[in-house]
Amino acid sequence: MQKVYINLAERSYYIHIAPGLLARLGEHLAALDVGRRVLLVTNPTVRRLHGGPAEASLTAAGFAVVPAEIPDGEEYKSLASAEKLYDLAYGRGLDRRCPVVALGGGVTGDLAGFVAATYLRGVPFIQVPTTLLAQVDSSVGGKVAVNHPRGKNIIGAFYQPRLVLADPDVLKTLDAREISAGLAEVIKYGVIADAGFLAWLEENLERLLNLEPAALAHAVAVSCHIKAQVVQDDETEQGRRAILNFGHTAGHAVEALTGYTAWRHGEAVAMGMAAACRLAVQLGRLEEAAAARVKKLLVRAGLPVDVPAGLSPAEMLASMRHDKKVIAGRLTFVLPTAIGRVEILRDVPEEAVRGMLEQRR
Amino acid sequence: MQKVYINLAERSYYIHIAPGLLARLGEHLAALDVGRRVLLVTNPTVRRLHGGPAEASLTAAGFAVVPAEIPDGEEYKSLASAEKLYDLAYGRGLDRRCPVVALGGGVTGDLAGFVAATYLRGVPFIQVPTTLLAQVDSSVGGKVAVNHPRGKNIIGAFYQPRLVLADPDVLKTLDAREISAGLAEVIKYGVIADAGFLAWLEENLERLLNLEPAALAHAVAVSCHIKAQVVQDDETEQGRRAILNFGHTAGHAVEALTGYTAWRHGEAVAMGMAAACRLAVQLGRLEEAAAARVKKLLVRAGLPVDVPAGLSPAEMLASMRHDKKVIAGRLTFVLPTAIGRVEILRDVPEEAVRGMLEQRR
Ligand SMILES: NC(=O)c1ccc[n+]([C@@H]2O[C@H](COP(=O)([O-])OP(=O)(O)OC[C@H]3O[C@@H](n4cnc5c(N)ncnc54)[C@H](O)[C@@H]3O)[C@@H](O)[C@H]2O)c1
Ligand SMILES: NC(=O)c1ccc[n+]([C@@H]2O[C@H](COP(=O)([O-])OP(=O)(O)OC[C@H]3O[C@@H](n4cnc5c(N)ncnc54)[C@H](O)[C@@H]3O)[C@@H](O)[C@H]2O)c1
Ligand SMILES: [Zn+2]
Ligand SMILES: [Zn+2]
Repeated sequence: MQKVYINLAERSYYIHIAPGLLARLGEHLAALDVGRRVLLVTNPTVRRLHGGPAEASLTAAGFAVVPAEIPDGEEYKSLASAEKLYDLAYGRGLDRRCPVVALGGGVTGDLAGFVAATYLRGVPFIQVPTTLLAQVDSSVGGKVAVNHPRGKNIIGAFYQPRLVLADPDVLKTLDAREISAGLAEVIKYGVIADAGFLAWLEENLERLLNLEPAALAHAVAVSCHIKAQVVQDDETEQGRRAILNFGHTAGHAVEALTGYTAWRHGEAVAMGMAAACRLAVQLGRLEEAAAARVKKLLVRAGLPVDVPAGLSPAEMLASMRHDKKVIAGRLTFVLPTAIGRVEILRDVPEEAVRGMLEQRR
Repeated sequence: MQKVYINLAERSYYIHIAPGLLARLGEHLAALDVGRRVLLVTNPTVRRLHGGPAEASLTAAGFAVVPAEIPDGEEYKSLASAEKLYDLAYGRGLDRRCPVVALGGGVTGDLAGFVAATYLRGVPFIQVPTTLLAQVDSSVGGKVAVNHPRGKNIIGAFYQPRLVLADPDVLKTLDAREISAGLAEVIKYGVIADAGFLAWLEENLERLLNLEPAALAHAVAVSCHIKAQVVQDDETEQGRRAILNFGHTAGHAVEALTGYTAWRHGEAVAMGMAAACRLAVQLGRLEEAAAARVKKLLVRAGLPVDVPAGLSPAEMLASMRHDKKVIAGRLTFVLPTAIGRVEILRDVPEEAVRGMLEQRR
C-alpha cells in the first residue's frame, strides 16, 4: 500500500492508496477515534456500483450507517442538498464525533466536505474518492464547496479530511472519458512540478488507460504528493498554491461559456494547458519542443487541445476577466518555463492572450 | 482606548474598545489591507439607530457600502438569510478581499460571520457588536453559526474576525433588559476566572447599569480578555473552553423548554449559574457564602435566579441530556469551587441534579 502524508500541523492526515481499500473502509474508520454513527454520502450511480462493500465493511466494523443519497450531477452540489444532509444528520442524532464519509466523485466529496465542515461547526470527514479526478485532485487540499445558482464553488470552506482512501479498483467502472478527464490533472502535475513524472507518464500512459492498478496507484500517489507539497506551503491559497491553476484560466472560461455541460472539467483544462503552453512559447518563455511534448501527451490521453471554434477570443477574454480568482480584472497566467517548472505571470497583455486564442493549433 | 489582543497565530487580531469608535469604522477598516467593497450586514432596528455614522465613516474612508438588511430576530439567523447575503455579495461583485462587516447584536454577528467564513471559502470579517452580550461574548472566540429549524447553531464554523470594534456609546439605546442579559455573561467571567473582577463588579455594578462609558469599557475589556485567554488555549472547543459553559447546562434547558422566547439567553444563563452554584454547594464543593455572593450580584443586575416554576425537574433533566454538547447522555456541569475557579464535573448523579432543580431558592 502507498501512503501520502499531508503535513498540516494538527490537521495532518494520510492518503492511503491501494487496490481493495474500499472493502476495508470500516476497519480504517475504526482506527480513528470517532463516533459510531456514520453519514455515508453518495449518489445512486456510485451506490449501485460500489455502495455494497463500503456499507458492509462499515457495518462489520460496528458502525451504524446513515445512508445519504443525493442525485447524480453537478447541479446537486448545492446549498439545498447540504440542507438535506443537515436534516438527516441532525434527525438521526449525529453528534460532533460522528464522521461524514464521502463515497463518490468530486461532486460528492465537495458537498459532503462542506457539510462536514459546517455541521456542528465541523465533524470528522473521510474521503473515499471514486473518480480519477477526485483521487488525484479534489480529495487533496481541503477545499470543499457548494455552487451558487450563478457561480461554481462560491460557498465553501477550507476543511481537511481525517483520512482519504483511494482505491484504483473502483475506477474500473468509470467511463473512458472520465479517465481522460482525470488524466488532464495528472499531466498537469508533471508539467508544473516534476519532469521525471512527466517522462514516466509518456512511457506508461497506455497502462493508465488500461486501468492497470499498479500504474494507477503510482500516478495517484505522485499526483497527491505533488498537490500536497504545494498545499502544505499555502493552505488557504494566498500565493504559491496558484500554480495548481495551470490550464485553468482558459479552461474555466471554456466551461463557463459552454454552461458546464459540453466539456468535462479535465477536458477544458487540457485545452487551457495547451493554450497556456502556446502563450508561453509566444512570449519567448518556453521552448517550442516542450510545448509540443505536453500537447502530444494530452492528445494521447484522449483529451482535446483546441479551444472550441465556436468561442470567440472576445468572449473568452471577457470570461477570463470575470473569473473569481482575478483581482481587479488583471489577466494572470500560470505559464511553464520548462517541463516541471512554472511561473505566475501577472498583467499579461491582452494582445498576447488574443494571439494565444486565435492561433488554434 | 483599550485594546485586547487575541493571540491565535496567523489568525490573531485586536478588539478595540472605546466610546466613539463607531464613527471611526471606515478609518480602522482602511488600515487593514482589504478590498474596497464592503457588505454591511445589519438589521432595521440597528440601522435606524446606528447605521448612519457607520455608513458615513465607511464612505468617507473610500469604501463602497453594500447595505444588507436582514429582519430583526433570532429566527432570521438562518440558512435562508445566509443565502440572501451570498446572492447580494455575489451579485454586487464582492471578491475574496472584500470585507463583511457585522453591525448588530449576536444574531447579526453570528449570521454575518457564517457568511464571511463560507463566501468564496472565507473573506475578511469585521465585528461591530452593538449589544452588551455581543461585545463581551459573541464577538470573541470565532464561533459563527446559523440555526437549523430544529436546533440552535447547528450549522456553523470557527472563523476569526480580522478586527472587532466595541463602542460602549452604542449601548445607550439598548433596553435595560438587554443590558442585564449581557451582564449575566460578564458576571460569569468573574465567577469562572477572576475573583478580583467579581469584586470590581460588586463595587461598580450601578455604574454599569447607568451605562457609564468608562465602566462599560473596563467591563468589556476584562470580559474579552478572559474569554480570549480561554479560547486561545482551545480554539476549536476540545476541552478547557467548556468552562465558558458555566450556567449554560441548565440555562440552555430553560431556553429550549420555553421555545427561546420567554427568556433572554443571559437571563436563562443567570438561572443556570445560580443553579450550578446550588449544585456545587450541595455536593460539598463550594462554600455557601460564595454561592450567596453570586446570587446577590445576579439579582442586583436585574437577573432572575430561579428556574421558572412551570418547568418540572423531569423536563429539565430530559432537555439537558439532549444538549448537543452532551456526549452519550452523560450529565456534565461546570461548577465553581471558589469565586474565580471552576471545575468540569462529568457524570454528575441524576439525583443531585434533581435536588438542584427542586430546591428553588
Ligand atoms: N475540492 C477541490 O479541490 C476540487 C478540485 C477539482 C474539482 N473539484 C470539483 O469536483 C467536481 C468534479 O468531480 P468529478 O469529475 O469526480 O465529477 P462527479 O463527482 O460528478 O463524477 C463524475 C461522474 O462519474 C460518476 N462516478 C463516480 N464514481 C464512479 C465510478 N467509480 N464508476 C462509475 N461512475 C462513477 C458520478 O456519478 C458522475 O456521474 C466538480 O464539482 C469540481 O468543482 C473540486
Ligand atoms: N458566537 C458566539 O460565541 C455567541 C455567544 C453568545 C451568543 N451568541 C448568539 O448571539 C445571539 C444573541 O445575541 P444578542 O443578545 O445580541 O441578540 P440580538 O442580536 O437579537 O440583539 C438583541 C436585540 O437588540 C437589538 N439591538 C442591537 N443593538 C442595539 C442597540 N445598540 N440599541 C438598541 N437595540 C439594539 C436587536 O435589533 C435585537 O432586537 C444568539 O443568536 C446567540 O446564539 C453567539
Ligand atoms: Zn482542475
Ligand atoms: Zn452564553
